[in-house]
This record gives sequence, structure tokens and C-alpha cells, in this order.
Amino acid sequence: MVETPIRFGILGCADIARKLSRAITISPNSTLYAIGSRSLDKAKKFAAENDFPPSAKIYDSYEAVLYDPDVDAVYVPLPTSLHVKWAVLAAEKKKHLLLEKPVALNVAEFDLIIEACEANGVQFMDGTMWMHHPRTVKIKEFLSDSEQFGQLTTVHSIFTNGGDEDFLKNDIRVKPELDGLGALGDIGWYCIRSILWVVDYELPKTVTALRGAILNEAGVILACGSSFEWEDGKTSTFHCSFLSNMTIDITAIGTKGTLHLHDFVIPQEEKTATFSAASKTGFMELAKGWVPLPSQYVVTTDIPQEACMVREFSRLVKSINEGNSKPETVWASISRKTQLVLDAVKESIEKGFQPVQVVA
Amino acid sequence: MVETPIRFGILGCADIARKLSRAITISPNSTLYAIGSRSLDKAKKFAAENDFPPSAKIYDSYEAVLYDPDVDAVYVPLPTSLHVKWAVLAAEKKKHLLLEKPVALNVAEFDLIIEACEANGVQFMDGTMWMHHPRTVKIKEFLSDSEQFGQLTTVHSIFTNGGDEDFLKNDIRVKPELDGLGALGDIGWYCIRSILWVVDYELPKTVTALRGAILNEAGVILACGSSFEWEDGKTSTFHCSFLSNMTIDITAIGTKGTLHLHDFVIPQEEKTATFSAASKTGFMELAKGWVPLPSQYVVTTDIPQEACMVREFSRLVKSINEGNSKPETVWASISRKTQLVLDAVKESIEKGFQPVQVVA
Repeated sequence: MVETPIRFGILGCADIARKLSRAITISPNSTLYAIGSRSLDKAKKFAAENDFPPSAKIYDSYEAVLYDPDVDAVYVPLPTSLHVKWAVLAAEKKKHLLLEKPVALNVAEFDLIIEACEANGVQFMDGTMWMHHPRTVKIKEFLSDSEQFGQLTTVHSIFTNGGDEDFLKNDIRVKPELDGLGALGDIGWYCIRSILWVVDYELPKTVTALRGAILNEAGVILACGSSFEWEDGKTSTFHCSFLSNMTIDITAIGTKGTLHLHDFVIPQEEKTATFSAASKTGFMELAKGWVPLPSQYVVTTDIPQEACMVREFSRLVKSINEGNSKPETVWASISRKTQLVLDAVKESIEKGFQPVQVVA
Repeated sequence: MVETPIRFGILGCADIARKLSRAITISPNSTLYAIGSRSLDKAKKFAAENDFPPSAKIYDSYEAVLYDPDVDAVYVPLPTSLHVKWAVLAAEKKKHLLLEKPVALNVAEFDLIIEACEANGVQFMDGTMWMHHPRTVKIKEFLSDSEQFGQLTTVHSIFTNGGDEDFLKNDIRVKPELDGLGALGDIGWYCIRSILWVVDYELPKTVTALRGAILNEAGVILACGSSFEWEDGKTSTFHCSFLSNMTIDITAIGTKGTLHLHDFVIPQEEKTATFSAASKTGFMELAKGWVPLPSQYVVTTDIPQEACMVREFSRLVKSINEGNSKPETVWASISRKTQLVLDAVKESIEKGFQPVQVVA
């Protein structure tokens, strides 16, 4: 039996949509079906350059994609300020929703999106690709191992990616009216998500942004960081910046083990990814060295992580469309917690780095 | 010509003194000459077990070591609360001073030690061994390379080392009357030093301890962290803890490069040490991976880092003793800055995590 692939429509021709188009093509249960842009020429060019099949629909508006009854799901890589409008409309048009991160400008906006998805029975997932890499599963096994890792005590996450002069002047991610959350929304999102992932999505009690955040003239965050505290004494810090060389780390430390990961958002190589795990680390006699040494692990993946994401999303969509299940709500829940903590970091910066209580 | 080695006396039989005894033996310009303990039996046992030459003097007090006119230099690994008394007396007895870290309970105490050293013309150095590893020089070359690393934007340092139940109950490092600075003094010292080393010893403007510090019932710090801010916008964070698996990291990020170091205090292997340096890191087309990949470097050392330290200290002492130079004051200056920042972290914790201005 040939399976019918999930037919994707894409709203807009954002750069990241090129990567997702490839992922939709690679994923075995999805197909590129439609692209909509305010410019028909741009849409045509995008479709031609990104291996859309000849039968694909090329539209001169986002609406047209949403009104096409044959579109099963939409991928929305629009600027964050446009998410609530288009995501809600997509849900109302019964389109399953793969939404780029940050999911909204704030959690109140995101709640409108979730409500629309729930009311219309569509699947929601955000575009945080690394969650779907098989390495992520392997690492979680280590972090969950009470013998090898013990109880988590602290986690530090970094995502910096230096923008050039043009980026820092002109990119949508430094424009308050487009991606108003700046570096915090664009890359800090991943840091916050990684920390929540490590702690099994337990929300911190308190968020305190670190002094020294850097904002541009329009008030958009170019670099910032925060510490988080949990009820049980766990702590966490993160740092994100558009002003530094690219660095993408998770360092998670437990009572018995340590994880080092240096490329969590995008693996250094597409098909193989590594991590370092240490357990019961100590010094040898006279501290002449370490024993045992940390171990390096390699995890391979048959398809790139973004295609794993599309495959999982499409699997959920297919099951819903066939009447076998309801939408999986865990993805919206994880997105919401990420946005909630992100909002708290922003609030703490705005309040002069005072602690902010996180209320679910 | 056979060179006369610098004759070391050691005050007390601390565990770390075993490592230093070996270093004094290995270093080509130093020799173990005397050991003093309040217990003569302990001193005898220590000398026998640590390759002291048969001619070595075994004393039943610290004073006796200081009053021995043939002792050139003393290594002082006593609990921090005893540093000021014995370090000052050592200087007054014209003994050059290799002092374990943390150098004092606070900078006011340390100033008494420096003054005594200056008044008596003796060399001061603290026992921060990793500063003397040839790897440290190599890494500094990378961090100073404006083309490969650019300007430093942020640095994160971690030193955690999980104590067992016995340690957390009985070790001198959790006793307020002995090493009252706890984890901050014992291992946070290294984090602070590493950050200052990265920034060429420019003092931060502001120190703000991170919420979530853990103190024992006696008020001794078991785990804490801090963020630092500099005038020019650089930032830094560190975390130290007696409650986590051993982890020893420096992550330094510049505008053009990134350094990762996972064993800065004690290299994983004694004779070869590694670090990772990345420069102008970016994603390849469609972010299928990184280009260029970070590079791994290996640095070898002929003798262990602690022997490098003793060698350098003894070289300075020899030059002074031969009338060729005055004491090198840079080491006291670096120690003082480390203590000053450490004091500020402690003050910030005591003030409920309020920012503290660092005043030289």
C-alpha cells in the first residue's frame, strides 16, 4: 500500500523555509504541495529552487495557501510579530501547524494560537529541530540514569552567533516591529528549551536576567543571559548573543555525571552527532590525572534532524486525519513553557534584572 | 657548575602537600629540606612517604621550620584561617612564600601578608598550579589573537567536585573556623582566577552572585555562582559546587573565536593536555553542518604543571638570593585581584544577591 504523504503549504519564502522544504522532501511521509508569498515571482522562484514538484501550487498570498482544501499542514516561518494572525487563521482553516520559533511575541499571544488549534482539532508543533535528532533521545537516557548521572544540580546553555554589520543593521531579528524578541527569541529560545528539556520541563520558580544585557538603539536584545532557580535547589544559567562567534553548548551536571554537548542546535555534521558523558569523575592518586576519563558517544541518523521533525509531525497529522487519534498536546505544552520562561527573562531585563516569579 | 637548589620547608602534612613534595622533587632547581608538623610522628611519616632525602629536617612545629636558617622557602598548605599568621611569620623570617589558595579569608588579611613579603624582600606566589602549564601559554596566544579570537565578549567557568558524605560533614573545607570560604574558596577560586586570566586581570566593575547558592548549617558555602560585568560590556559567569560530579570548564567566547577547555585546573593526563579552539565558525549552506569545524590542540609538558610552578618560583627565589633581582610582584597582584573578586562574590551572597562594586 502506497501511503499518502502529508501535503505541506509554506507561508512565505524565508531563508529557513529552504531548509524545511528540503526536510519535507526528505521525510518519507510528507510532500511539498504549496507555497504562498505576497510576491508571485518570489514564490515561483522559491518553488523552482527548492525542488517543489511540478504540480505544486504557487500562490501570491498566504491566504490562498490556507484556503486550498488540499493543504493538510502549513509551515509558518514568518516574522514572530505575524505569528498570531497567520497561525490562528491556519488553525481555523483546519491546517495542522508547524510554527517557527519563537512561537509568539509573548505567551498571551501564544495562548490564542493554542486555543485556535484546540478548537479546530489541528496538530501543533514548533520548529525546534534538535528535539527530534536521535542523539537527543540518547542524551536523555544518560541524563535520566540515576546511577550514571544522578540528580541534576545545574545546567548551563549557550547559543551565540555573531551577526555581521548588515545583519545587525537590517535583519528582521533586530527590528522591533518584526522579530521584536531579538537574540532572546531567535537563539535564546534554544537555550531556554534546552534547559527545560534537561529538567523534564519543570518550570523554574524564579528567573533573574544577568546584568550586562546589550540592546540596540531600538531596544531589541542583541545579547543577554539569565539564571533560573528551581524549588528543589537546581540552578541554571544561559547566555545568548548576536555579537559573538558561533558557540552552541549544553553543560549539564548531576550529582554523579556530566554532559558536554557543543553543537546541540545544529550538529557539526549532518548524519553523525557526538556528545561527551562523564560519570563518577575523580582524580587519580596525587591528582596526576582524571579517572575515569569522559566518554565520547557518536549517534547516527538516517535523515537530518529537521526531516525527523517533519516525519514525526506528519505521522501525528496522518493519524489525526485518519481518525485514529487526537492531536498530541505535549508539543504545544513544551512551546508554551519555553515562551513563558522567555517572557520572564525579558520582564527581568525590563525590571532592571530583578527576579521574576514564573507562574504557569 | 652544579646549581644549588632552593631548599623548601613545608608547614604541615596536608594532603595537597604530598603533591607539592613530589613537585619539589621533580623540579630541577628545588629540594625538599624540612617538614614541620605539630606531631613529630606525623612529620616523620610524611617525610618517609614522600621521598624526603635522609638529610631532611623533621620538626615538631611550624615555627622550627621558619627558624631554620637553611630553609630558603616555605610551602604553606595550612587551612585558610591560619594563613595570615604563618605567612606573615614566614616572611618575617625571610622565607620566600609559596602559599596555598585561597590565599586568605579576605583581602584585608591578604594585604598583611603582602606587606610582610614586601617589607622582608621575599618572593610571593600562590599555589594555583594550572597557571604554569605550557598549555596555559598556548591558550593565551589564541585568546590574544585579534584575527582568530577577536575581542572577548563573555567567559563561563565551572569547577564542581562532589564531596562524599564524610567530606561534607568533616572536611576542613566545610568548617567555618578552618576554611570558612567553603567551595567558593576551594574551587570557586579557580573559576575566578580563570576569568581574570582570560581578561588580562582587568577587574570587573560589578559582581552579582547568582541566586540559589547553597550553604551548610554552619553557613559555609557548598555551591554558588556569580556573574561579573566589565565597563566595556564584557560579561562572565561561574559556578562552583561541592555537590556535583567533577567538572572543570572554561568557555571563552570572542567576536571571532571560541575556546573550550574541560580540565583547566588539573589536566586529564599529566604530560599532554588539550584544548579546543574555533574561529569564524558558521553553518554551511542550508545549515547542514558547521564550517570550519573547531580544532583540537595538544600541548605536552616535560614536567607536571605543579613542578613547572615550583620551578618558576624557585627560579625567582634563586635570582633574589643571588642579588640579581627583586621579588616579582605580579604574582601577589594576581592573587590579590582573585581574592578581591572572591570577597565581592561572598559579599553579594550575604547581601541577598545584590550587585557589589569591585574597588581595587
